Amino acid sequence: MALSVTILGSNSALPISDRYPTAQILRVSERFFLIDCGEGTQMQLRRNKINFSKINQIFLSHLHGDHVFGLMGLISTFGLLGRRKALTIHAHSDLKNLLKPHLDYFCADLPYQIVFKDLNYDEPTVIYEDKKVVVLSFPLSHRIPTCGFLIKEKAKQPNIRKEAIERYQLSVPEIVAIKNGQEFIGEDGLPVDSSELLTPAPKPCSYAFCSDTRYYRRVIPIIKEVDLLYHEATFLHELKDLAKRTSHTTAKQAATIARDANVGQLLLGHFSSRYRDLKPFEEEARSVFDNAILVNDNMTIEVKR
Amino acid sequence: MALSVTILGSNSALPISDRYPTAQILRVSERFFLIDCGEGTQMQLRRNKINFSKINQIFLSHLHGDHVFGLMGLISTFGLLGRRKALTIHAHSDLKNLLKPHLDYFCADLPYQIVFKDLNYDEPTVIYEDKKVVVLSFPLSHRIPTCGFLIKEKAKQPNIRKEAIERYQLSVPEIVAIKNGQEFIGEDGLPVDSSELLTPAPKPCSYAFCSDTRYYRRVIPIIKEVDLLYHEATFLHELKDLAKRTSHTTAKQAATIARDANVGQLLLGHFSSRYRDLKPFEEEARSVFDNAILVNDNMTIEVKR
Repeated sequence: MALSVTILGSNSALPISDRYPTAQILRVSERFFLIDCGEGTQMQLRRNKINFSKINQIFLSHLHGDHVFGLMGLISTFGLLGRRKALTIHAHSDLKNLLKPHLDYFCADLPYQIVFKDLNYDEPTVIYEDKKVVVLSFPLSHRIPTCGFLIKEKAKQPNIRKEAIERYQLSVPEIVAIKNGQEFIGEDGLPVDSSELLTPAPKPCSYAFCSDTRYYRRVIPIIKEVDLLYHEATFLHELKDLAKRTSHTTAKQAATIARDANVGQLLLGHFSSRYRDLKPFEEEARSVFDNAILVNDNMTIEVKR
Repeated sequence: MALSVTILGSNSALPISDRYPTAQILRVSERFFLIDCGEGTQMQLRRNKINFSKINQIFLSHLHGDHVFGLMGLISTFGLLGRRKALTIHAHSDLKNLLKPHLDYFCADLPYQIVFKDLNYDEPTVIYEDKKVVVLSFPLSHRIPTCGFLIKEKAKQPNIRKEAIERYQLSVPEIVAIKNGQEFIGEDGLPVDSSELLTPAPKPCSYAFCSDTRYYRRVIPIIKEVDLLYHEATFLHELKDLAKRTSHTTAKQAATIARDANVGQLLLGHFSSRYRDLKPFEEEARSVFDNAILVNDNMTIEVKR
């Protein structure tokens, strides 16, 4: 498995008994990123047997309650479990001031540090990077400042072919040089074709999260060709006016974004509680973009190479 | 059914996937009282099909996160559902100041009023009363100010016997007078024995909630002979020193309180997450007080007349 997303909550503002408010775990290159943190996130993490200590970065799209009310419980539980590693929360700059009095009151002896990083709502911004993964935030268009997130594996080096090592008796420095793109000269004094020496690197995997937002085509170049796109679909298209008024998206609009960004697969979530039967969401989306599915809580969607 | 309690959450501070932090609904004489409000309370209310609009009084024993982190989500959801009726929250006086900035930020357009009432941690106090029910808070002994709650039906009037109405041709004013305890004089000029006129009123039902607290015998006269006692039992008695140090109770101690208060039934909850097998809690409690059960989330315990 190259990348996977586990849905901890898939409903919109009003949770129902089997759909919690928004939260998900994105797993890539052994990193576990928590995206949004609706009420009940810690219970859903338990239910999905996700090791709490693996979560070091939390990305909060916006400060509406259904995306953040699980945060205090999670922070407190991390403390009770004796966490020592710092926890970084990427969110709106208001969050720190809002949480401070609650942290002081409810979590006075927290044994670890919380690092608050402010999101940029003006333009796409790299907000996390390590040697294997990069995370960008990008502006969405909702009633309050809101960011989507793009999580990408970094491009990998090609692999050296075992036959080539044997045939040309390659040393370690030579292998490193070839993998870095340097030409290799054979005993006959001629350059060896790189395809004889290397197998191409696996394509890096990528994931984009777009919630909450109105139908917003500016995201298309940013999320172009991601393997997986999670996009909110609060309403069916017959309620497109309500969607516009409340700065949400319809299933058809989300599928249009997916089609025009040429993504691999579309995951729809953040459904309004008014709908009992969600089947029409899938039908509506698939009329525009075939590879669309509706997510459920506790579902894991994988990207395989 | 005269009275029932529905367990929404039965674990201690660290929730596990099938045990949420503390919350419960006490139903008596068509009233629905919410006692404590741990994270996930609103989802558990949904799961138990409890009508949100019936909840007008919330009683919070103390301000530890596992007893209150569900409050913002619940308040917000009440607002999204268009609630108009005032909501009264009985809690420590700190709560109002803690919630105010969050209410302003996350629930700016709340369509109903929240009334904060401060609990008294010094002595038993009537905190709610209507024509059918009375609620008392009483001090427990925990690491921070904590109250237990006693919920009692008021004594009812005896019922008039149908045969007596016919035999003595009783008028409505006469019936009212007899039910109020006035003597009734028959045609022979002699008082009629009240047992010939009246059937005794059903015994009022009562419920007591004791969590969180160390082993605290001062509650015994207050909760004397309640039909149902919920008492925390965070630890088994082999960890009585840890229980004392953390101001919690063992199963054996909770059962001793139940026995000495001569309650009808003991419900044990608030188990530490360290225990996988809870059977020993029941065995330990029953060695002292036979009518003891362990609660589970989504369990309803009824008192029948």
